[in-house]
Amino acid sequence: MAEAVTKDDNGAGQSAGPIVLSVDAMGGDRGPEAVVAGLAKAAGKNPSLRFVLHGQEDVLSKLVRKRKISHITEIRHCPDVVTMNDKPSHVLRNGQGSSMWSCIESVKAGEASAAVSCGNTGALMLLSMIRLKRIEGVHRPAIACLWPSLSPSGFNVVLDVGADVKAEPRDLLHYALMGCSYARNGQEISRPRIGLLNNGTEEHKGRAEMKEAHDLISAAAKQADFEFVGFVEGVDISSDRVDVVVTDGFTGNVALKTAEGTANIIKHLLKEAFKFSPLSRIAALLAYTSMKRLQKRIDPRRVNGGVFLGLTGTVIKSHGSADATGVAAAVHLAEKLAQKDFNNRLASRLADATALLEADANGDAET
Amino acid sequence: MAEAVTKDDNGAGQSAGPIVLSVDAMGGDRGPEAVVAGLAKAAGKNPSLRFVLHGQEDVLSKLVRKRKISHITEIRHCPDVVTMNDKPSHVLRNGQGSSMWSCIESVKAGEASAAVSCGNTGALMLLSMIRLKRIEGVHRPAIACLWPSLSPSGFNVVLDVGADVKAEPRDLLHYALMGCSYARNGQEISRPRIGLLNNGTEEHKGRAEMKEAHDLISAAAKQADFEFVGFVEGVDISSDRVDVVVTDGFTGNVALKTAEGTANIIKHLLKEAFKFSPLSRIAALLAYTSMKRLQKRIDPRRVNGGVFLGLTGTVIKSHGSADATGVAAAVHLAEKLAQKDFNNRLASRLADATALLEADANGDAET
Repeated sequence: MAEAVTKDDNGAGQSAGPIVLSVDAMGGDRGPEAVVAGLAKAAGKNPSLRFVLHGQEDVLSKLVRKRKISHITEIRHCPDVVTMNDKPSHVLRNGQGSSMWSCIESVKAGEASAAVSCGNTGALMLLSMIRLKRIEGVHRPAIACLWPSLSPSGFNVVLDVGADVKAEPRDLLHYALMGCSYARNGQEISRPRIGLLNNGTEEHKGRAEMKEAHDLISAAAKQADFEFVGFVEGVDISSDRVDVVVTDGFTGNVALKTAEGTANIIKHLLKEAFKFSPLSRIAALLAYTSMKRLQKRIDPRRVNGGVFLGLTGTVIKSHGSADATGVAAAVHLAEKLAQKDFNNRLASRLADATALLEADANGDAET
Repeated sequence: MAEAVTKDDNGAGQSAGPIVLSVDAMGGDRGPEAVVAGLAKAAGKNPSLRFVLHGQEDVLSKLVRKRKISHITEIRHCPDVVTMNDKPSHVLRNGQGSSMWSCIESVKAGEASAAVSCGNTGALMLLSMIRLKRIEGVHRPAIACLWPSLSPSGFNVVLDVGADVKAEPRDLLHYALMGCSYARNGQEISRPRIGLLNNGTEEHKGRAEMKEAHDLISAAAKQADFEFVGFVEGVDISSDRVDVVVTDGFTGNVALKTAEGTANIIKHLLKEAFKFSPLSRIAALLAYTSMKRLQKRIDPRRVNGGVFLGLTGTVIKSHGSADATGVAAAVHLAEKLAQKDFNNRLASRLADATALLEADANGDAET
C-alpha cells in the first residue's frame, strides 16, 4: 500500500479535464488589474485552466473582458476587501463578505482545486486554518516558502516559516513529509534531500527535541523515499546540500527575515560602493542590467509568500506586490499542484507515516 | 548605589598604568606570524599595552624580536596547539599543555585583563566557561558578535549567538544587560537601543517565555539606562532600529549562519551577473575596488567571532583567518574593554538587576 502511494507520488499522471482555481482578485498592492492580467498570462499557456474569481463584480467583469478570459472565468461578487493592515482576528470575525473569505470557501466547497491570493498573509493564513480544516493526523499546519539557493532548481523549500511558533518532534516529521511532497510535486525533485535545521555546535548538546525529531525523520526516510542529510545549519539553507529544510515556525520566520535583512543591507552597501568614485559610477551604469537580474533572482518578496501545507485544501500566497508575471507564476504553481492531486497525495503520505509511527510504537516496524 | 554604577558605566574614566592582555599566539589559520604582527601594530598605537604571549617559545621569541615588542611581551612556553579540528571536549580533557589553555589561565590568575585567541571557537568557549567561572547570578553565559548594520557605528551587538541552545526569560534579561554594557563600553553607545528578537506575526500568540522576557527587560530599562524598543524581527538585526539584539543561542546561531549563507549566495550570483555579457565583464573590472570594499565590510568572518560575556574574565575570539589588521582590531577591543574595567562593571550591573528582580518579587520595586 505504502509502495503504491510512493509510486503514485512520483508519477507524472495528469488529471484530464479542466483545472479550476479559486483566485482572490483583491487585496494585492497592484489591485485586480495585475491579478487578472496574470490569469490571462497563465491561461495563454494552459488552455485547460478555469477560474473562480472573487471580488467586486463591476470592476472584474470589465477586466476579464479586456483580457479576454470571460469564457473561462466565473466571477463571484464580494463587497468587501481585506486590506494589508486588517488584523487577522478581525478578518476572521468580520470578513464573511470579503473576496479572501469567498476565495477559500470555493476550495472548501470542492469547486476549485486550489486557492491563490496576493492579500494579507496573516489573515489568509488564519482564515485558511480555520475554514479549511487540518488533514487528519496533522497537529500543526506549516507555511512553506521557496528560498533562493544554489540547488539545481534554484530554490530550496523551507518550512515552517511562520504558521506556528512551536513544533514538537512529530510536527517536524510531518513538515519533512509535507516538504518532501511539495518538492516532488511543485519542484519536480523525485527524491528530495531533506535537512533538519539546527545550531552548528556539535559538541554542545542540541535541544533534546531536535534529536528526537532527527530520529523520527531518519526512520521515515526509506518508506517516504527521501534522502535525509541530517542536521543542517543556517548557512546550508541557501546551499545545494539540501532541497528541503525543516524547522519550527519561530526559527524559520527569524531565518527568513534575517535573510531579507541581509539582502537589504548588501543592496544598500552595494549602492554606496557604486557611488564611491567616478570609476565606480561608470561601472554601475555598465552593470545596471546585471544588477537588475540579480535583484530579481533574490528579491525577498519572491520568497515572502508561500504554500500552506497540512490543510484539506491547497492555498497559495502570492506576494502582495506581485505583477502579472508574479501572479502567473503563483497560478502556475497552483495548477501544477492541482494537476498532480497534490493535497490528496500529501494526506496519504501523512496517513502512512502515522501508521508507521504507530507500528513503530508497537515494536513491529521491522517486521 | 545603582545610580553610581550607571554613571561609572557611562564614564570615560581610564585606568592608569599598563594594560596587560593574554594572547594565544597559536591555532589561527595564519599562524603566530600574523598574531605577533597584529600585536606590534596595536602596540604602535597604544604604548601602555603589555602582552603575555602563549605558544612555542623558540618560534615566538624570534617573532617578537623581529617585530620589536620583546620589551613589552612575556612569552609563556606551551608545547601543544589546539587545532581547528580538535573536539572541544577533547581539549578540555587533554589541553593543559596548549597555548589556549594557558592563555585563559592568565586571565583566571589575574595577571591579564582579557584573553584574545584566533583559535578553535568551540574549544575556546568550552575552556573559558569551565576555567573562568560564571559571574554570580548569571545562569547562562553568552557569545556576543558584532553584526554589520545600518546603525551609525556600522555594527549591532547580537547575543547569544551560540553559547547555549536555550534561554529562560531571566537569561534573556541578563543578555540584555550584558549586551547593553558591551555596546556602551565596546561600541561607545551611551544609551543603547535594545530589541528582543521574535517572529513577526503579532496576531499569533508568540512563545509565552518571550512575553515574560519582554516584561522583565522592559522593567529593567530605566535603571540600567537603555532604550527598550520591544520585539524586533529578523529583518531588524542589520537595521538602524537597534544597537543590541537579544535572543537565545539556538536562534542567534541560526540567524548568524543564515546571514552568512545569504551573503554567500549573493556573492556567488553577483559573480555570475558580472560574467553574463562582455559589457558586464567590463563593469566588473571597473567595479573591482568597490566590490572589495563591500566584501570587507560584510565579510562573514568579521562577524563570526565574538566576545564571551557573563564569565569572570573577558575572552575575545578573533576570527581564525585574521591577518595582522584583524588581530590588531581584536586587541584594540580587548584593550578598550580592559581599560574601562568592563567585566567588573558588567558584574555590578548584573548584581543590581538581580537585586531589582528580587525586590520586584517582594513587591517593593516601586517604592
